[in-house]
Amino acid sequence: MSIALVILAAGKGTRMNSDLPKVLHEIAGAPMLVHAMRTGASLMPERTVVVAGHGFDDVKAAAEAYDPEAKVVLQAEQKGTGHAVMVAKDALAGFEGDVIVLYGDTPFIQPDTLENMCAARKDHAVVVLGFEAETSEKYGRLVMEGDALKAIVEYADASEAVREISFCNSGVMLADSRVLFDLLDATSNDNASGEYYLTDVVKAANDAGMTATAVSCDASETMGVNSRAHLAEAEAAFQARARAALMEDGVTLVDPSTTWLSLDTVIGRDTVIEPHVFFGPEVTVESGARIRAFSHLEGAHVSRGGIIGPYARLRPGTELAEDVKIGNFVETKNAIIDEGAKVNHLSYVGDAHVGEKANIGAGTITCNYDGVMKHKTTIGKNAFIGSNTMLVAPVTVGDDAMTASGSVITKPVEDGALALARAEQVNKPNMARKLFEMLRAKKDKKQKDKGQS
Amino acid sequence: MSIALVILAAGKGTRMNSDLPKVLHEIAGAPMLVHAMRTGASLMPERTVVVAGHGFDDVKAAAEAYDPEAKVVLQAEQKGTGHAVMVAKDALAGFEGDVIVLYGDTPFIQPDTLENMCAARKDHAVVVLGFEAETSEKYGRLVMEGDALKAIVEYADASEAVREISFCNSGVMLADSRVLFDLLDATSNDNASGEYYLTDVVKAANDAGMTATAVSCDASETMGVNSRAHLAEAEAAFQARARAALMEDGVTLVDPSTTWLSLDTVIGRDTVIEPHVFFGPEVTVESGARIRAFSHLEGAHVSRGGIIGPYARLRPGTELAEDVKIGNFVETKNAIIDEGAKVNHLSYVGDAHVGEKANIGAGTITCNYDGVMKHKTTIGKNAFIGSNTMLVAPVTVGDDAMTASGSVITKPVEDGALALARAEQVNKPNMARKLFEMLRAKKDKKQKDKGQS
Amino acid sequence: MSIALVILAAGKGTRMNSDLPKVLHEIAGAPMLVHAMRTGASLMPERTVVVAGHGFDDVKAAAEAYDPEAKVVLQAEQKGTGHAVMVAKDALAGFEGDVIVLYGDTPFIQPDTLENMCAARKDHAVVVLGFEAETSEKYGRLVMEGDALKAIVEYADASEAVREISFCNSGVMLADSRVLFDLLDATSNDNASGEYYLTDVVKAANDAGMTATAVSCDASETMGVNSRAHLAEAEAAFQARARAALMEDGVTLVDPSTTWLSLDTVIGRDTVIEPHVFFGPEVTVESGARIRAFSHLEGAHVSRGGIIGPYARLRPGTELAEDVKIGNFVETKNAIIDEGAKVNHLSYVGDAHVGEKANIGAGTITCNYDGVMKHKTTIGKNAFIGSNTMLVAPVTVGDDAMTASGSVITKPVEDGALALARAEQVNKPNMARKLFEMLRAKKDKKQKDKGQS
Repeated sequence: MSIALVILAAGKGTRMNSDLPKVLHEIAGAPMLVHAMRTGASLMPERTVVVAGHGFDDVKAAAEAYDPEAKVVLQAEQKGTGHAVMVAKDALAGFEGDVIVLYGDTPFIQPDTLENMCAARKDHAVVVLGFEAETSEKYGRLVMEGDALKAIVEYADASEAVREISFCNSGVMLADSRVLFDLLDATSNDNASGEYYLTDVVKAANDAGMTATAVSCDASETMGVNSRAHLAEAEAAFQARARAALMEDGVTLVDPSTTWLSLDTVIGRDTVIEPHVFFGPEVTVESGARIRAFSHLEGAHVSRGGIIGPYARLRPGTELAEDVKIGNFVETKNAIIDEGAKVNHLSYVGDAHVGEKANIGAGTITCNYDGVMKHKTTIGKNAFIGSNTMLVAPVTVGDDAMTASGSVITKPVEDGALALARAEQVNKPNMARKLFEMLRAKKDKKQKDKGQS
Repeated sequence: MSIALVILAAGKGTRMNSDLPKVLHEIAGAPMLVHAMRTGASLMPERTVVVAGHGFDDVKAAAEAYDPEAKVVLQAEQKGTGHAVMVAKDALAGFEGDVIVLYGDTPFIQPDTLENMCAARKDHAVVVLGFEAETSEKYGRLVMEGDALKAIVEYADASEAVREISFCNSGVMLADSRVLFDLLDATSNDNASGEYYLTDVVKAANDAGMTATAVSCDASETMGVNSRAHLAEAEAAFQARARAALMEDGVTLVDPSTTWLSLDTVIGRDTVIEPHVFFGPEVTVESGARIRAFSHLEGAHVSRGGIIGPYARLRPGTELAEDVKIGNFVETKNAIIDEGAKVNHLSYVGDAHVGEKANIGAGTITCNYDGVMKHKTTIGKNAFIGSNTMLVAPVTVGDDAMTASGSVITKPVEDGALALARAEQVNKPNMARKLFEMLRAKKDKKQKDKGQS
Repeated sequence: MSIALVILAAGKGTRMNSDLPKVLHEIAGAPMLVHAMRTGASLMPERTVVVAGHGFDDVKAAAEAYDPEAKVVLQAEQKGTGHAVMVAKDALAGFEGDVIVLYGDTPFIQPDTLENMCAARKDHAVVVLGFEAETSEKYGRLVMEGDALKAIVEYADASEAVREISFCNSGVMLADSRVLFDLLDATSNDNASGEYYLTDVVKAANDAGMTATAVSCDASETMGVNSRAHLAEAEAAFQARARAALMEDGVTLVDPSTTWLSLDTVIGRDTVIEPHVFFGPEVTVESGARIRAFSHLEGAHVSRGGIIGPYARLRPGTELAEDVKIGNFVETKNAIIDEGAKVNHLSYVGDAHVGEKANIGAGTITCNYDGVMKHKTTIGKNAFIGSNTMLVAPVTVGDDAMTASGSVITKPVEDGALALARAEQVNKPNMARKLFEMLRAKKDKKQKDKGQS
């Protein structure tokens, strides 16, 4: 069965108190909208339509960044969820199959749940996603008769008896495209708020002699975000689940509550994550590595046996081969570092290739930027870069070569050569004592002058 | 109505197990005493008297540091809360108006609560601050008759019936100065502990034909601190409230539990705070900035569009204009950095002025200290400071000027000039290989010699 | 009474999902096995036998690293706890006295608890350690008659009445060596799992006319670890207790939940630990020091008045005398730093001795590694090391000596001397402007060429 995705993402999110459209607020390093698109993508939809309104341009950009094929349509005025879906109609012209409606501010629906909805579609025209809640909650109620969903009743409109129903509406809905739009045409905005409700489709289906049903999922999947406090709760929920999943998979998190994960973080078995580690987007760590405390990784790959940190910052484009060691106060960016190489202290390695078993001394900097363009540094295998070497790119240091500590390297260094750029050391006896005396006298005079003025 | 503040701060705090007087232990980067003084200051008191005892000199210094006008008086012996207030009498000589008694170890009373007490003073001679507690708690009980507070009964002295009262005494009290001291004179220390109790004032007022009342506040405001475990709880309570308030104001805290805030931290709307950020005292961040993970700020101002960190340390006197970027392993101190300038990696910028759009290369250090005095560095707009430049202050680099990587700059660099201080690079073919061979042979010999000895 | 320790540590720990044997997973920086050995060591045992199986070599190595006298014996097949103890028999040949059986995956038993068991041994042949649990839990039940332990009944085999017993078996057992092995010989593996159970010893003792008893401990002591989620919980439990104990002892933990402690961390009274500090193994901090945020310590000693961090990394062999200051982005290793010396910024001090009141400038590096061997740097008292000095070890800088900023020091500097190794600064007027123009033209051309190709 062909499927199309409609994601409602037009709301302003007033309670977020933000200039950023609500669906672009992030969880685990990705906009909530992307979470919803990602879940929907598990159904391999033929088309994806995002209905945007507030912050249209930004929402469009984010949607297309994740899925360049996504069609982003404008809901200029917000006249209810039913209206929002109707806005998607043109973008679905010519499409035949099922439409599933998801929400850009409901990031945690699981692929399995959508599969369950699709399975239920075989016997019913409309499938709604429900969840169990406390009866004190004010969600819309799902009125079931056996398998059949007879109506969705808003809490405000519900009788005492209906309010006792604990099976509630998540808003997620699945139906055949033509049926859905036909039923929506049959709904009206003749109600207190003057809006078109997607939920009215259920009654319309029943009235038209079709059947609807509801599928249940865990309440945590339907968690919506309306304020920054909710956002923080949702983030915490995501992190707790992601940490538990990693531990289940055999990763050691020494202090799980201080490990921050992104949506796409991948970590191998028996890798140890020490306290206070931040994983930004697009990080993969193989098995048997160790990420030490206070490390920060983004867009980086760490291979088996790698030891990273403490205080290592791996930036995008960092590719570390097996047994690479990156030590403290070291930044890497767009750097390929071959097996067994070491960058142990206080260095910046950017736009660089470092050969096998090379040793990069403390304070080494690849001077990759000339003020206008970036250039590349290449270091050979077994090379020994002395402490505080400046590698003025573009520049090459050969295999088995060495640079003397404190050298500025501007010209290529051949294999096996030693490069020096260093002034001769001169010692001036007693000069330090004299200098200190002079400086102290100067200071005293200054303070005396101040006192007199 | 004129008001005077009396803050009781003489206790030792034995359970703190500390040489530091209890009221100087800090919450959110400020001594508890300062929290109490700050709340009291919201009433714009005519006089502030701090009653100190243990660690008198340190308490005096802290009180005067916050409010140079504060009078700090010595309670040499600790003979009860009533006695402590009496000790403040001389310091209030000539003052006419109301006196409010606060506590140096009760940091969370809110200004609104004090306003409520002042309002209640219109109809009563004495106003006490109460709060609701579980009846299992052993606080003193407030015996009310309608609006009228008839007595404060200590738990130990309370009948079963009185113990059922859930309205409890916080100790905070407001009364006319003359009335308060007259009533205190009428109390005695003829009780089990031989102390004068401030609470006895209530009965004395009733006995003298005056009326007392009580105003209620949230129990969380009256939280007192008696041990370091309490202190940690109070800190956690402060942080939770401060984080929630920031989120309400539209700040994104990605992982709120890892954001540490000071009493006076100010952060603008739509600024994003990544995990693991520490805000020390006197930090302001404008709207739309981003403070990246593992950053540490104290006494700094970050303007709109600023991107700070990860691993940036902004020290006092740091003033960043709009769109400034401070990157990883960078320390700034007493530094004014103009619009659009960048200090991206591994640098120390202290006692410096950096011009608009200047780019400070990795490993740059302002050598501001000559061993005796500190000196200033000035860098012009659009200047390009090459990696690992040492700027030996006092020194000036002009607009559009450039320094070559690895240079030690001791003399001024004119606008548009290039400054170099660099030894020529010499490559010695095959020397690295020879050196390694030699070193390895030396090591082998050493180990052999060791084996033989 | 002589005592011998038998620690069962043969299990694989399938649910850990790890190649590392379960008992080598760490809590507070030490393998769980070491926690158990450490507790047992409080009884000053005459012999310690570790029964290992899965990952035998690694377990043996860890056991011997902690206690070189420990005997590690192989349980090749795992046939129950009774069998595991029998495997220890040969290693106890010739030993007379009591044997206590502990578990390598039960790290939290307290020395006091073992003392209580020893005391109870006076009146009984066998002493079992029990704890109170919810009756819904599926632990083995201890069937008591007064003081006497009649049987241990596995939950699976227990009647409804026995399941109502809340006093449960921890597995820890104490008995005379000969008695224990005789009783074990009397047990059989004629049960569902075909294993020998240590618990059967209790019934065997009763059958043989001896008495057994049980001693109770807090349930938290008997917490076992079967999965990484358990491990994280155990770690959290350890940390919570260790933090509370430090606070009780007068240490200020500003944000306790972000302070990570090792099993052997020692911190003195009135020392302040700021948020986000990691204490690895073998750290001692004296009273009145301050460990600032984001610091990382291992194998280091900090004396009174020391101020460490933020972002300081003290590695093993760091010995700081009183009032030493280690600032941000500084790494020390195998470094003795004398009273009042300062290393404030962006430095690496390794294999070094720094004299009293020496000042180490920003960006200083001890170049201790020549690619083959490590060498030592010695810096005299009151020495002033200019920013970005490279100290190429082995090298000595005398008392009151000074190095100029940016110098590479390869030869000794006498007391009071100034050492320079620096190229002369040359300014090239207008060259920076020309260079920028040239670079920009080059870039434009490059982009143009790209556009055309």
